[in-house]
Amino acid sequence: MAEAYDVVVIGGGPGGLAAAYGLTGKKVLVVEDNLWGGTCPNFGCDPKKMLYGVVENVRQSQAYAGFGVTGASLVDWPAMMAFKRGYTENVPRGTAAGLTGAQIDHRHAHAEFVDAHTLLVDGDQVTATNIIIATGAHAQRPDIPGSDLLETSTDFLSLPDRPTTIGFIGAGYVAVELANIAVTAGVTVHIFQHNHRLLRGFPQAYSELVAASLAQKGVIWHWDTEVTGVTAANNGVVAQTSAGEFNLSHLYTAMGRPANVDGLHLEHAGVALTRGGIQVDDHLRTSAANIYAIGDVAASPVPKLTPVAGIEGRYAAGQILGNTDAIKYPAIPHAVFAGPELAQVGRTYDEAVAEPDKYTVTTQQVGKWYTYNRVRDEHAQVTTITNKDSGLLVGAIAYATNAEELINYLSQMISNGEPVAKLQSWVPVYPSVASNLQYFY
Amino acid sequence: MAEAYDVVVIGGGPGGLAAAYGLTGKKVLVVEDNLWGGTCPNFGCDPKKMLYGVVENVRQSQAYAGFGVTGASLVDWPAMMAFKRGYTENVPRGTAAGLTGAQIDHRHAHAEFVDAHTLLVDGDQVTATNIIIATGAHAQRPDIPGSDLLETSTDFLSLPDRPTTIGFIGAGYVAVELANIAVTAGVTVHIFQHNHRLLRGFPQAYSELVAASLAQKGVIWHWDTEVTGVTAANNGVVAQTSAGEFNLSHLYTAMGRPANVDGLHLEHAGVALTRGGIQVDDHLRTSAANIYAIGDVAASPVPKLTPVAGIEGRYAAGQILGNTDAIKYPAIPHAVFAGPELAQVGRTYDEAVAEPDKYTVTTQQVGKWYTYNRVRDEHAQVTTITNKDSGLLVGAIAYATNAEELINYLSQMISNGEPVAKLQSWVPVYPSVASNLQYFY
Repeated sequence: MAEAYDVVVIGGGPGGLAAAYGLTGKKVLVVEDNLWGGTCPNFGCDPKKMLYGVVENVRQSQAYAGFGVTGASLVDWPAMMAFKRGYTENVPRGTAAGLTGAQIDHRHAHAEFVDAHTLLVDGDQVTATNIIIATGAHAQRPDIPGSDLLETSTDFLSLPDRPTTIGFIGAGYVAVELANIAVTAGVTVHIFQHNHRLLRGFPQAYSELVAASLAQKGVIWHWDTEVTGVTAANNGVVAQTSAGEFNLSHLYTAMGRPANVDGLHLEHAGVALTRGGIQVDDHLRTSAANIYAIGDVAASPVPKLTPVAGIEGRYAAGQILGNTDAIKYPAIPHAVFAGPELAQVGRTYDEAVAEPDKYTVTTQQVGKWYTYNRVRDEHAQVTTITNKDSGLLVGAIAYATNAEELINYLSQMISNGEPVAKLQSWVPVYPSVASNLQYFY
Repeated sequence: MAEAYDVVVIGGGPGGLAAAYGLTGKKVLVVEDNLWGGTCPNFGCDPKKMLYGVVENVRQSQAYAGFGVTGASLVDWPAMMAFKRGYTENVPRGTAAGLTGAQIDHRHAHAEFVDAHTLLVDGDQVTATNIIIATGAHAQRPDIPGSDLLETSTDFLSLPDRPTTIGFIGAGYVAVELANIAVTAGVTVHIFQHNHRLLRGFPQAYSELVAASLAQKGVIWHWDTEVTGVTAANNGVVAQTSAGEFNLSHLYTAMGRPANVDGLHLEHAGVALTRGGIQVDDHLRTSAANIYAIGDVAASPVPKLTPVAGIEGRYAAGQILGNTDAIKYPAIPHAVFAGPELAQVGRTYDEAVAEPDKYTVTTQQVGKWYTYNRVRDEHAQVTTITNKDSGLLVGAIAYATNAEELINYLSQMISNGEPVAKLQSWVPVYPSVASNLQYFY
């Protein structure tokens, strides 16, 4: 006889876990066929930012060369990776132990749909009133000869020894962040991009600052370049490209992250796909009314980020517990850890400049401001976007050391609709990132 | 004939300047007898934090030794000081130029009172309807033989070459911050403290974490030790202390900062002094009704910090322009840049533990949390204080890398009386300092 649950959550990452922990009083099963904890803590933002901390320290010491720091500090790749493993190797066990402690049933198994209320979990039939799909996403592979020789960000984040020369196909945030780590560690890095645009979604002028910074560090950009094939070679691969052949220790695909839906047999449950993943409505319901999709697998209209998965997981749990409100997202900030960071939130630059009657767009070069001069961040730049009618901040972009915290403060103001006068109601430590807030607009 | 002003501001630092710029429509004179800009940008928080950035980079590289960073990065003292000078040397001229641009009269001169409405400014009589005293504070000197051989934080912040061995008398935040800079730069540092307490005003358990960290870096603490005299010696001084004699390149007094009132002839104006500086009421009025005192010179009931001087300057200007509200301070955070930072805001630990029926005090060792593990900050610790009735956060203490930003977020919640649920209304970048906020209480 099939075991019956109130809710089965497919996927034990940040989204699925937020949902499972939110489903107080329900009989819940969480199923995960990869590492407990999902992408972010195992092979995503958490290990990435551990490596980033190390390379940022080295970058900052280079920026201070001649200005107070002397001596060569270098990235020790094997030690850096061991440091990372010291964190990641505990994630799956710790995550599973958390579920055990909370008395939430969980199985390390593969789940697939039999129908909208029935799953096969490693061959066992399980029924559920509601099902939440939180299976995440994976690195896309190009359809070229030798595609199976390509590696992914997951492989990069576990590379035990420093490679000599690597390449990335794609110029989104994954390629940029990993290229920055590698180049700062002394690796020769090639980036092959089919057009002449990086970090789509960020304003072009800002993305070009990042491209210039990476080039200055040594990254070799190959714009308007197609990778047409990959062959195995001694100590690596050869990339055939429209710009010639390149011998590389590793070639990583970083062309985007499609939804993890293979093997789920969504068609058995009537769950429809769309561009960007599983189709969901503004209640995160799929085309099957009892089934929700959250996080990276869902085609919800927001960036695919860990905090979004958490919000969506808690929201889906709330829906199952009886809430009927449509989902309302706060302003979602997005940071690219590129040394320094590029971060943005809210209304985009392109949207704002397209409506000059509606928005005031203010861009300031802040490299000479005390806060950025202090850390020798001479290219720091901040844009704020305000609504002309209300005077309220509605968007911001920052390319600066610690931009993530600056954008956090501004995100808070945007989400809460706080006027600039509200900055008078509290006092930040001086000097700090926050002590500049009043000067940005 | 005496020149007549609506307002004379004595002191061109952060407080006096905030007042002068706030006095729209008034005829204002600002008088400064030292460097335009005052303590903070010339020989206070700004240059201090420039040096701190450099030594923090070196400290962090040491923390990463064996965990991803290799090679010896060291402080290059002359380059660090040249970097600092590149900032500070423009401050006086830039500040004066700002006043000129705003068409605010200003004189580099000494001011002293003739009566409550009359000043002598380098010998010229000047009258004013209102006067704002914003003369700041200075390093106290002990009453011991050879006291004139002692140097101050101002001297330290301009020391062109790295000294061999230095000492500090006192264990407040000035001594701690400068000792941390010096010891990280490879200087042998002695701290002589008459009792066994540092960083008075911070909870003892936290201040002891700072003491232990400095000791681990090499600072030699001499507790319960009186410095009884100083004599000149080759290449420095000899400190006579109750713990023996010490040869030092420099000995700095860091025993507190009394108000700058010498030479003002406050008695001519009926302006009274009290413990902590010029006596002010809750309108920042001195005992002479037309005279205000603001910033470090004023005995107002808040820490003597740059943002406070700014608040008080703007407030005094507002009073003169007709506002009659008593001053109301937001929660004032205070950070000690000790590598890592110790910061606090709001209700103090001692106040809170004294009233267990009223406050919940929660202390967490957060060194193993991702954010602090990531930067190898194993001793990181955070305390939150909440009001049991309201559930609101009313105080916080943090000893952690980037504690200033953490305390900023918490200061904002305290000042605005925001419930913890308010954290759900916005989303920070993940991972970032702010992405932990919900886990502290």
